[in-house]
Amino acid sequence: MDTEQIHRQQEIEELRVALESARTYELESITENVRTQEIVEVWEDLSDERQGEVLSVLSPEKAAEILANLPEDEQPQALDTLSADRAQSILEALDPDDLADALQALEDYSPERAETLKGLLAPEIRATAEELSRYEEDEAGGLMTPEFVSVGANMTVSQVIRFLRRASPDAETVYYLYVQETDGRLIGVLSLRDLIVAPEDQRVREIMIPDVIHVTTDTDQEEVARLMADYDFPALPVVDADGHLVGIVTVDDVIDVIEDEATEDIHRLGAAPVDVDYARASPWEMFLKRAPWLGLLLVSMSLTFNVISHYEGLIEQVTILAAFIPLLIGTGGNVGSQIATVVVRSLATRELETRDFPKVLGKELITGLCLGLSLAAFMFVYVMVFRGDFDIAIALAITMILIALCANLVGATLPLVFRRLGIDPALTSSPGITTVMDVVGLLIYFQIVLIVLGHILEG
Amino acid sequence: MDTEQIHRQQEIEELRVALESARTYELESITENVRTQEIVEVWEDLSDERQGEVLSVLSPEKAAEILANLPEDEQPQALDTLSADRAQSILEALDPDDLADALQALEDYSPERAETLKGLLAPEIRATAEELSRYEEDEAGGLMTPEFVSVGANMTVSQVIRFLRRASPDAETVYYLYVQETDGRLIGVLSLRDLIVAPEDQRVREIMIPDVIHVTTDTDQEEVARLMADYDFPALPVVDADGHLVGIVTVDDVIDVIEDEATEDIHRLGAAPVDVDYARASPWEMFLKRAPWLGLLLVSMSLTFNVISHYEGLIEQVTILAAFIPLLIGTGGNVGSQIATVVVRSLATRELETRDFPKVLGKELITGLCLGLSLAAFMFVYVMVFRGDFDIAIALAITMILIALCANLVGATLPLVFRRLGIDPALTSSPGITTVMDVVGLLIYFQIVLIVLGHILEG
Repeated sequence: MDTEQIHRQQEIEELRVALESARTYELESITENVRTQEIVEVWEDLSDERQGEVLSVLSPEKAAEILANLPEDEQPQALDTLSADRAQSILEALDPDDLADALQALEDYSPERAETLKGLLAPEIRATAEELSRYEEDEAGGLMTPEFVSVGANMTVSQVIRFLRRASPDAETVYYLYVQETDGRLIGVLSLRDLIVAPEDQRVREIMIPDVIHVTTDTDQEEVARLMADYDFPALPVVDADGHLVGIVTVDDVIDVIEDEATEDIHRLGAAPVDVDYARASPWEMFLKRAPWLGLLLVSMSLTFNVISHYEGLIEQVTILAAFIPLLIGTGGNVGSQIATVVVRSLATRELETRDFPKVLGKELITGLCLGLSLAAFMFVYVMVFRGDFDIAIALAITMILIALCANLVGATLPLVFRRLGIDPALTSSPGITTVMDVVGLLIYFQIVLIVLGHILEG
Repeated sequence: MDTEQIHRQQEIEELRVALESARTYELESITENVRTQEIVEVWEDLSDERQGEVLSVLSPEKAAEILANLPEDEQPQALDTLSADRAQSILEALDPDDLADALQALEDYSPERAETLKGLLAPEIRATAEELSRYEEDEAGGLMTPEFVSVGANMTVSQVIRFLRRASPDAETVYYLYVQETDGRLIGVLSLRDLIVAPEDQRVREIMIPDVIHVTTDTDQEEVARLMADYDFPALPVVDADGHLVGIVTVDDVIDVIEDEATEDIHRLGAAPVDVDYARASPWEMFLKRAPWLGLLLVSMSLTFNVISHYEGLIEQVTILAAFIPLLIGTGGNVGSQIATVVVRSLATRELETRDFPKVLGKELITGLCLGLSLAAFMFVYVMVFRGDFDIAIALAITMILIALCANLVGATLPLVFRRLGIDPALTSSPGITTVMDVVGLLIYFQIVLIVLGHILEG
C-alpha cells in the first residue's frame, strides 16, 4: 500500500466515525466539503436512520449523486426513509439513466411507493425515465443516457461555442459533440478539442469525423464494452433502428459492465449463484440460491455410487484399490477444471473463438498426454514406495494417463461446445467438470484394473 | 446477436479475405479506409510476411496505432519483420507509454534488435521512453502517458484557448486541462467544457477545481482502476512524491487493467497458470506452466491414500463404504469452492473486507448447516432406497452434515485469512479447496462410521 492509499483510508475512516457520532444538526457542516464518493464508501456502515438524515441535509444534486452511486439494492431502502417531497427532489436531480434504474429498483421493492413517487415527478422527467426503462437492462439502450450534446452540420464553430455557453451542459456529457441531420440521424462527431483548434467561421461539416463508431439500442452490453475498450473512447453514441441518435453510453457504465460480466463468469465457474450480492444477502437467501446447484451436482455424482458398487466384488478382493479413488478422480477434476478455466476466460476475452476448436483439440491432446505421463510417473513411484506392488502400480499409471488425457480434452472442448450451442461456456464450472470426471475416472479405473490385474483375480 | 454486430463481423471477415489474398501493391488501397482496430482484429490470421507488408504500406502513424493495439507478445515479432528505418519511424509515432511498453517487449524478445532500434530513435523520444520504463508495470507510473496538457493558474481563458490552438494536442489527452504551479506541482483541474462556457478574461485560478483527485506513480493499478470507476473520469492525473504532475492514466489503460485482474483471479481460482496467453502458447509451454500446480495438488491429495489405507480394515468388513467416498468428498469440494468463489470475488470488488470476518463466519455457519441438512436428507433417502441399511444411512447423513458445514466454513473463511496474511485470496482455488476437503472429508467419514457402526463391527 502506498502512502497516498493509506492516507485515503484514514480519511474515509475519520469520515465514518464523524458521520456516525455526529448530532443531526452537525451533519450539514461535516458533509459540506466531502466528496460524494467518500460518503458512498462509508454508507453501508451507517444506520438506516442516519442514511436518511444525510440524504436530507445535502443539496438534492449531491444527494442524487450519492444515490446514483449506491448499489442498486440499497437505493429503494434509502428512498424509503425520506419524505415524499425530499425523495422527489432527489429523483428529479438524477441523470435520466440513473433515474430509470432507481425507479425500476424501487418498483421491485415497493410498487406502491414507486407509483406515489412517479406521480410527483415533473411530467417530462417522468416521460424520459419511462422511455429509457423500455430498453433491456443488458443492452446499449439500458446503459445509455439521453443527455448528449448535438449540433447541426451547418453550424459554424463560433455558433457552436455560443450554443455551448448558453446550454452549459454537464462536463461528463461533452467529451464529444455529435452531429445530427435535421431528421435526427447521426452523421458525424466532433471533439471539443477539434472545436477549439478550428477557425471560428469553419462549418461543423468540414471538421467533423463523418464515419462515427456507434452502437444500436439493442447491442449487447458486452459488445458495447468491447468496442469502447478497443477504440479508447470515453463515450459511444447509440442510435435506434433508423439511425437516429438517441443516447450515449459513457465509460463509467462500461467499467461496471466489465466488472459485472467478470463476476458472472467467476461465479458460474465456481457453480455459485450469479445474481447475488453476498455482502447483503441473508444466509437463507444464499442457501436457496446455492442449494439447487449443489443438489444437481450431488444427484449427478450419485452415479459414482452405482459405478463403485458395480465393482464391489473387485474391491472386496483388493481392498486397497479403494484407497486410490480420491487421488485418481481428484486429479481428473483438477486437470479438467484447470484447462476449462483457461478456455472459458479466453472465450470471454475473445482470444479464442469456436472456430479454433480443431486447434484447441490438437493442442490439448499433446498437453494432456504430457500431463498424464508426468502424473503417472509420480503415481507409479508412489505406489511402488508405499505398497511395493508392481501390478497395481502399472494399473494406476495407465489409469492416470487416460484420466488426465480425458479430463484435459473434456475441460478444453466442453466450453467450446457450449458456446457453439449458445450456452454460456462458464457453465462448464469446476464443480461440473469435477463431477463428470468423477464418474468417467472411476469407469476408466476399474476397467484398467480388470485388464491389468485380470490374471490374479478370482472369477 | 443484433444486426449491427452481424454486419460488423461480415465486414471483418471480408477484410480478412481481402488482406490475405491481395497482391502487395493492392494492400495500400485496401487498408486506406479501414479502421486500425479492424486490422488488429484480423492480424492473427495473417502470415508473418503479410503482417510486415501491411505495416510497411501504411503511414507510420497508422502503423503505430496498430502496433500499440496488438497484444504485447505479438509486437516484437511484428517489429522484427520490418526494415530498421521503417521500424524506427513507426516507433517514433507511438505514444510514449506505448513506446516504452513496445521497447520492453522487444528487449525480452531480442536484446540486440532492441538496442539497434533504440539507437536510431530521436534522443528526446528515447529519453522519455527510458524515463517511463523505470516505473513498475503494474503501478500508475507504468500505465501513465506523459502527454497531458497543462496550463498556468494565472492564464486567462482566452490565453488558454490561444495556447490550445497553437499546441493542437491529441484529442485523447485533452478531456481535462491540468493546472500546474510554476514549480510543476498539480494545483487544479479544468474541463474543456468549463473553459468554453467561461468568460474570456477570467483567470484559470478562478474557474479551476482546486482539489484534484489524483494518484501517485507508485499507486497500484487496481487502485487506479477503482478510483476511475468510482469517480467516472476518463483520465486521472499522476503526481510524483513531491506532488509534481508527471503524467495521466487514461480510461483505455484502466479497462485493460480491470480485464487483466479479472483474468488473473479467474485463472487462480481454477488453479491455472496466471501469466499465460492461451491462444499463442505452445502445448509444451502450457504443460510446463500447468504441471507444477497439478503436481502440488496431487502430492497434497496423496494424503487421502494414507487416510483410506489407515481404515483398510473397516472397508474390508463393509466394502460398500468405499462406494460413498466420491459422493461425500465431492460434495465437500463443491460446497467449499462454491462459497470460496463468491467470497474471493466479493473481496476483489471490495464488497467484503477482512474486518467482515465475524459476519461471514456467522452467516456461513447458518448457510452451511442448512445446506448440510438438505444434502444429508437426500443421502439418507438415497441410501435407504438403494441399500436399505438404516445404520449406514444414518452414518452418511451425519457425515454429510459435518462435511458440508466444514467445507462451507473453510471455503468462506480461507480467502479472508489469505487476504489478511497478504496472500492473494484467489489462491484458495476450487482445486485447492477440493483437495483440502478430500482429506478432511475422509477423516470425518471414517470417524462417524466407526461411532455409528461401532456395535456391528468386529474388533
